[in-house]
Amino acid sequence: MAKLSIHNGLEPIETSTMADKVEKSLREYLKKKPFLPGDALPTETEIASALGVSRNVLREALSRLRMLGMIESRKKRGMVLTKPDVLGAFEKVLDPLIIDKDTLQDIFELRLALEMGLAELLYLRKTDKDLEELETIAKAEKKHKDNDFRIKTEIAFHGKLYEITGNNTLKRFQSMLLPIFGYVLTLEKKTIMGKVTHLDLVEILKNGTRDDFKEGMYQHLKPHFDRLKK
Amino acid sequence: MAKLSIHNGLEPIETSTMADKVEKSLREYLKKKPFLPGDALPTETEIASALGVSRNVLREALSRLRMLGMIESRKKRGMVLTKPDVLGAFEKVLDPLIIDKDTLQDIFELRLALEMGLAELLYLRKTDKDLEELETIAKAEKKHKDNDFRIKTEIAFHGKLYEITGNNTLKRFQSMLLPIFGYVLTLEKKTIMGKVTHLDLVEILKNGTRDDFKEGMYQHLKPHFDRLKK
Repeated sequence: MAKLSIHNGLEPIETSTMADKVEKSLREYLKKKPFLPGDALPTETEIASALGVSRNVLREALSRLRMLGMIESRKKRGMVLTKPDVLGAFEKVLDPLIIDKDTLQDIFELRLALEMGLAELLYLRKTDKDLEELETIAKAEKKHKDNDFRIKTEIAFHGKLYEITGNNTLKRFQSMLLPIFGYVLTLEKKTIMGKVTHLDLVEILKNGTRDDFKEGMYQHLKPHFDRLKK
Repeated sequence: MAKLSIHNGLEPIETSTMADKVEKSLREYLKKKPFLPGDALPTETEIASALGVSRNVLREALSRLRMLGMIESRKKRGMVLTKPDVLGAFEKVLDPLIIDKDTLQDIFELRLALEMGLAELLYLRKTDKDLEELETIAKAEKKHKDNDFRIKTEIAFHGKLYEITGNNTLKRFQSMLLPIFGYVLTLEKKTIMGKVTHLDLVEILKNGTRDDFKEGMYQHLKPHFDRLKK
């Protein structure tokens, strides 16, 4: 198991290509100048000559920025700066199979922390309609015992919680983290459930205080926290 | 203010380029196959012919994956799959000036939620040495009154809190969110401070319970939460 490999401790020296360098200059240029979304960039010829690079290299770098959603090409206007999709690029690399174990664990904990921190936003923004929907999800779960259905309602319940916060970025962020969360859970030997169920959490949201909810959520997630202690 | 613009509601129809399509196929291919970091990919010629695309287009797509940290080129081995830097791409687009206002606000709230959710991890992992360091930061702050120094210690204090969680991804994530947080704060008219200071928080971490800390952190951040109510 402890077989020495050339890759242990010996990391390849970082070599950045011309495209890396041009990409970086362009990002810094876009951040420093008072550009706003919708503003047109200089032409390819102008940028290439300003940077002293070939148009091929410039195009490679621009293609990367296009992928990040920082720029887009518009007919007649050339390249324009766009509002980037901040989570888009993050989403592209989130694959539990290629992320290293420590980072998987980190992300698992990050989601636990987020879940524990939702109480303030929930109590600020929950509506009766939200709680009705949440209750419907929690009740459906009780009727079904099979595992697939359980996982689906688990996702639906926690997804709905994030939705109640009214924060789209937060909701999307958590749904992106779900596969990672699910994957880490499968690494555990058995599924253990917290004492406080989804229905209990709904009841607290209806009639309890913010502090009750925090304690309830802690009890709900306690098996995971207990595992961290080891 | 409500002037109608062609861009309100009329979004350009999404057109994906060949490079977009090839990039997507490659990402799906890498996720579906049981590849592990370090595994070599087929050669450019093989991939281009399998996808039926030109090598130029393939190279553009590969360049994007290289930027995302999903693949890298190694001497003699060709392209190999790497452990992606999950936050790297996210970091590249985080620029308060080009992110739209709603998303800025979302990110601001996300950080508030995270901060409120730190208590469990902190109480699991804090050491005496950590608390000493935290106290040093909080005490230095009291001595200085100028604003620049205040902001620096604000960053140092909260950064140290994240460090105590022992979660590198979390720590890096929060430090990436700092410019956004700072930017949103500058949009507020005046800086209002919570009743509970950094030194109070240190005292709670030393002698108080997890629940005391949650309440303390809430009071510390309360001006921000109050603002959300409006």
